[in-house]
Amino acid sequence: MNSERAPGARAPAWGFTSDNIAGASPEIVEAIVASSTGQSSPYGADEITARVERRLAAIFERDVAVFLVPTGTAANALCLSTMTPPWGNVYCHPASHINNDECGAPEFYTHGAKLVTLDGPAAKLDADALRAAARVKVGDVHSTQPACASITQATEVGSVYTLDEIAAIGEVCKAASIKLHMDGSRFANALVSLGCTPAEMTWKAGVDALSLGATKNGVLAAEAIVLFDTTLAAEMGYRRKRAGHLFSKMRFLSAQMDAYLNNDLWLRNARHANDMARRLTQGLATVPGVEVMGETQANIIFCRLPKPVSAALVQAGFQFYRDRWGPDVVRFVTAFCTAPDAVDSLIAHARDAAASPRA
Amino acid sequence: MNSERAPGARAPAWGFTSDNIAGASPEIVEAIVASSTGQSSPYGADEITARVERRLAAIFERDVAVFLVPTGTAANALCLSTMTPPWGNVYCHPASHINNDECGAPEFYTHGAKLVTLDGPAAKLDADALRAAARVKVGDVHSTQPACASITQATEVGSVYTLDEIAAIGEVCKAASIKLHMDGSRFANALVSLGCTPAEMTWKAGVDALSLGATKNGVLAAEAIVLFDTTLAAEMGYRRKRAGHLFSKMRFLSAQMDAYLNNDLWLRNARHANDMARRLTQGLATVPGVEVMGETQANIIFCRLPKPVSAALVQAGFQFYRDRWGPDVVRFVTAFCTAPDAVDSLIAHARDAAASPRA
Amino acid sequence: MNSERAPGARAPAWGFTSDNIAGASPEIVEAIVASSTGQSSPYGADEITARVERRLAAIFERDVAVFLVPTGTAANALCLSTMTPPWGNVYCHPASHINNDECGAPEFYTHGAKLVTLDGPAAKLDADALRAAARVKVGDVHSTQPACASITQATEVGSVYTLDEIAAIGEVCKAASIKLHMDGSRFANALVSLGCTPAEMTWKAGVDALSLGATKNGVLAAEAIVLFDTTLAAEMGYRRKRAGHLFSKMRFLSAQMDAYLNNDLWLRNARHANDMARRLTQGLATVPGVEVMGETQANIIFCRLPKPVSAALVQAGFQFYRDRWGPDVVRFVTAFCTAPDAVDSLIAHARDAAASPRA
Amino acid sequence: MNSERAPGARAPAWGFTSDNIAGASPEIVEAIVASSTGQSSPYGADEITARVERRLAAIFERDVAVFLVPTGTAANALCLSTMTPPWGNVYCHPASHINNDECGAPEFYTHGAKLVTLDGPAAKLDADALRAAARVKVGDVHSTQPACASITQATEVGSVYTLDEIAAIGEVCKAASIKLHMDGSRFANALVSLGCTPAEMTWKAGVDALSLGATKNGVLAAEAIVLFDTTLAAEMGYRRKRAGHLFSKMRFLSAQMDAYLNNDLWLRNARHANDMARRLTQGLATVPGVEVMGETQANIIFCRLPKPVSAALVQAGFQFYRDRWGPDVVRFVTAFCTAPDAVDSLIAHARDAAASPRA
Repeated sequence: MNSERAPGARAPAWGFTSDNIAGASPEIVEAIVASSTGQSSPYGADEITARVERRLAAIFERDVAVFLVPTGTAANALCLSTMTPPWGNVYCHPASHINNDECGAPEFYTHGAKLVTLDGPAAKLDADALRAAARVKVGDVHSTQPACASITQATEVGSVYTLDEIAAIGEVCKAASIKLHMDGSRFANALVSLGCTPAEMTWKAGVDALSLGATKNGVLAAEAIVLFDTTLAAEMGYRRKRAGHLFSKMRFLSAQMDAYLNNDLWLRNARHANDMARRLTQGLATVPGVEVMGETQANIIFCRLPKPVSAALVQAGFQFYRDRWGPDVVRFVTAFCTAPDAVDSLIAHARDAAASPRA
Repeated sequence: MNSERAPGARAPAWGFTSDNIAGASPEIVEAIVASSTGQSSPYGADEITARVERRLAAIFERDVAVFLVPTGTAANALCLSTMTPPWGNVYCHPASHINNDECGAPEFYTHGAKLVTLDGPAAKLDADALRAAARVKVGDVHSTQPACASITQATEVGSVYTLDEIAAIGEVCKAASIKLHMDGSRFANALVSLGCTPAEMTWKAGVDALSLGATKNGVLAAEAIVLFDTTLAAEMGYRRKRAGHLFSKMRFLSAQMDAYLNNDLWLRNARHANDMARRLTQGLATVPGVEVMGETQANIIFCRLPKPVSAALVQAGFQFYRDRWGPDVVRFVTAFCTAPDAVDSLIAHARDAAASPRA
Repeated sequence: MNSERAPGARAPAWGFTSDNIAGASPEIVEAIVASSTGQSSPYGADEITARVERRLAAIFERDVAVFLVPTGTAANALCLSTMTPPWGNVYCHPASHINNDECGAPEFYTHGAKLVTLDGPAAKLDADALRAAARVKVGDVHSTQPACASITQATEVGSVYTLDEIAAIGEVCKAASIKLHMDGSRFANALVSLGCTPAEMTWKAGVDALSLGATKNGVLAAEAIVLFDTTLAAEMGYRRKRAGHLFSKMRFLSAQMDAYLNNDLWLRNARHANDMARRLTQGLATVPGVEVMGETQANIIFCRLPKPVSAALVQAGFQFYRDRWGPDVVRFVTAFCTAPDAVDSLIAHARDAAASPRA
Repeated sequence: MNSERAPGARAPAWGFTSDNIAGASPEIVEAIVASSTGQSSPYGADEITARVERRLAAIFERDVAVFLVPTGTAANALCLSTMTPPWGNVYCHPASHINNDECGAPEFYTHGAKLVTLDGPAAKLDADALRAAARVKVGDVHSTQPACASITQATEVGSVYTLDEIAAIGEVCKAASIKLHMDGSRFANALVSLGCTPAEMTWKAGVDALSLGATKNGVLAAEAIVLFDTTLAAEMGYRRKRAGHLFSKMRFLSAQMDAYLNNDLWLRNARHANDMARRLTQGLATVPGVEVMGETQANIIFCRLPKPVSAALVQAGFQFYRDRWGPDVVRFVTAFCTAPDAVDSLIAHARDAAASPRA
């Protein structure tokens, strides 16, 4: 079942397929409306863009170079393109979005760099595996060369790197003289999960460049490339333009990001999504026959549901992915706008189905 | 003077630098607001996107393949990437946006195809020059090969190809077995200028792929790739995704395009912009010392202003480009939101300055 | 120990590191000399090149398109570039040369296609694994797409695909509508090992394009791209020129290939190399403490040598790789010019060392 | 008439179409023969390659980084790829080989950089035009950026840059912080024409990287990339390997280059070719109706021949290009092996034809 991308698929109010089926937070929409009148300097030379840059510098407690783009794929691929030559290795987890879900965008933007996958539990890159890999064939012209690593926070399965785990990877990168990228498409979810500062979760742990996600967390379409290694910034402007990601009416991206970061909206949205995931986990854990897989650290849950239970949920109109990761395994994703009622109803339907004679 | 892109530049209400300093039409903003609530299938599998596709098929009176993207650079480069191999020639005018203003986006997306510039009056590609060029070294492995031509309608200087001119180029392309792309960043302005149908201005004249602009004409950020040669569509989905231009919340692009095409908004906006340009031309033509250059066919005007006149206009807060195209040459661009008052005021200031003893 | 690439490394007469340390067969050198006088049409429009094309058509018993290039990396990368779009998957074994030893040449030439590694015993691609992989996410724009498979005959570890194994892979490719490439850098060694015809080992088993190696088997620097799917040929000429692999004095490559294929030189050379490998295997198998790994099917041998034995061989001036594939594992490669005396001497030294008190 | 590349074209002993129809100097062939026996370290870790590097350092009177490749197209494209980012401008003459005759190799190797042509008399890049071009839109993300210039010595029409002309271009490059490449496919011809040192004609005049041609001047297939800016060397090894231009049996390229540079063979060969061109010019200048175009500075001559004269020469079996550059314009190219008899015979035939009643 691949309901997410099937043309014509219904998207009921209580979908749990992905955080990208959601609309936008009212604050975001209001900001777009407010920004849409009057004349404004194009291409980022406007006041709102400048304000976003100041906000991000304050949030990360240091100078940063900021480039707004409309999608996470663009943010990731652009970041990586400044961190590797075409003959470089990009170390990443086999489950990473850059490896599986971007149709080769990193290879396109880097002009053919090689994604070298290194396994690790809970979809996390293993620091020891990275250390070993980054030593292989260094300087050998027959081989692509260590260039950078990319980690996803929170990961594609909803796990969250601890600060120590990030720092360990950061140290390996530093020792090997390679760069570290963080795909932060669910950055805020990880941040509130860890309860740390943005600085601690990034540059203080060795991250050189961040794809700061917002689209999955209440924004319509806006992501921020945040460069801590500002030597990477020199070429980013050309790369972004050349890729068609420099908006003439930049204020439109900036207004979204501005509202997202204002008044802790991003953290509130993420906290809600995480809470809903925990609520769902806790409810499902009490349903006979349901096995929750792994710990719920952000807004993604995997569990094993008896077939009658998942069938009953589908029958009731809930949407979620199943049968992609193994027999009876389903994934639920919550979002900033997931209603507690929807969660409770899902749990209730599951409990009823589990209790029925067929189950 | 390069006020357009200078960070910190003021953008007063009466700017005439470019149509990209404008905000959005109220209808567009309302459509975004309306689309922002509720859950929706991602990546274009939603109702609004389907409606846009139906609208474009109706407008162009035939089956078309549609791919929405956020910028004109992306639309152009993606179109061209399906029309040429990496060793192909893309014939275009030296003044074309793809040649001058996209930081090599066509070369990036096509993996190194060659933009071969062919001159012609009024920034229009000359059919005879194209015919000659497309015959050179065909089949010679030492040379890049004829692949496609790209024309801009309305052109970068505001001129408009006649239907006969487009058809002549279309015939050359067909005879040479090369494709024809139209950069329609100001498509609506040209359309109302010619008073023809969208079909007549495109596929009936031999155009295979169109970048249908909307951002310059009232939309915040949305363009449509419209493929008439639907054999080009097969790979476009992969190319768009790989470039980071597939929006997860596609409805956000679609809502803009839907409102743009609804109820003739696109034509009304373009007609207003053209009207304001003509009003400005007619007014300036009466100012002593002002020389209007070329015919005003769309929403861009070039004229020669005596230095004291242009200085007075700048002093009064008007913004426009000067000194890029020759001594005393200035460019004015009008838009869907240009106020008649602004135009009249500009003319009045020019007349006053021309009449002052210094002029 | 990485003696192969170390600058200044000695290369004694009895090296067994690789088949690329050899010089050239006398017949090859004579052909170069003979071709070097007089004027000749450049870029392949000469008589010798035409003769090579006729020879290959006769050898493969069908029409073929032939493109000569100087290196195996060029042959492989050019072949693959015609068999996959930039968003395609190239399925190959993790141990393959294209994956490990070409510094990303396939990614460069294909503009970023993805090498997807599929494991299998004896460095052979597994047909079942390929069948499964080629079904994943077909048509999903988020994922790179199945495009082609590449197998190496003989493999990088000296094993040889049986005709049935090749045919099984060929059938999977056909069913999945993907192309099949054969890296034949040791094609002749595999051919004499199997005792079949070139046609049986290639197009009759489903191979679409072959990199026909010669450099490792007596030639100075020449390889032939042989296309059975001649629809791939149309663009190859442009790709080869664009990569700088079209020789102006083509006769120089052609003369080598012509002599290589003349009078069965290629088969005689390969047979000798294989014989020497078998002689070495049989000799070493009788040395106490030596474990021959796998079956000797071509001209590459892996075995486990007691440390004192390998140390004694190095001391005696023999060169070979060790410690790359596991503790005490060494690799010996024989060539067309390996002297039986050298083999016998190596065996004798090994036997002496094994019998000494230290061993 | 395109006799050069037409399959099946005859190549008579007295061809004057190009210097690439020649074979090789006996010294080159002997060196290949001598290098072809015995074992040798591969990939350039051999003694002959080391000797070539020492020779080039001595010839250029400084440290240089040397990379041998088989073709001039590869040398040029590899040099340029280290001198420009993908969004860079490569300034060159419209008549340059990189612009016309390499099927987009520079664009392929640079991942899409833009060749910006700047005109100038005698196929020479004009320093003033370069100075102006390198100032345009610097730092503007909408535009590709100045990166390097490339000049050909001797040029494609046989003219030779003076040392002052090169130095003037070198100064412009230095002032603009861009690199300077020299396509030296006829380097030796220019060198003996000017009577200067290799150092004076390159790095002392500001050249950063040189494609040192040899193939057109007596070698079978070998060119040297010579980097004076050795910071460009770090990535060259990876780029060369990745392009399939690293020979396993490198000694084969090195032996050619070693013999080429030994005992002034390269200078003697070039001097002979130039002498033959001058002899031809002086002879033709005395033939009624013949107009020699430009000054004969190297081994290429353009002249206008009455139609009956050129027809008579073709009839007599001489080969040369005509009708590519204008009515009655023909090109003659001499080489290291051009026989004085052939030159004299050509002149005599021309004189006879001019004197015949038909002329």
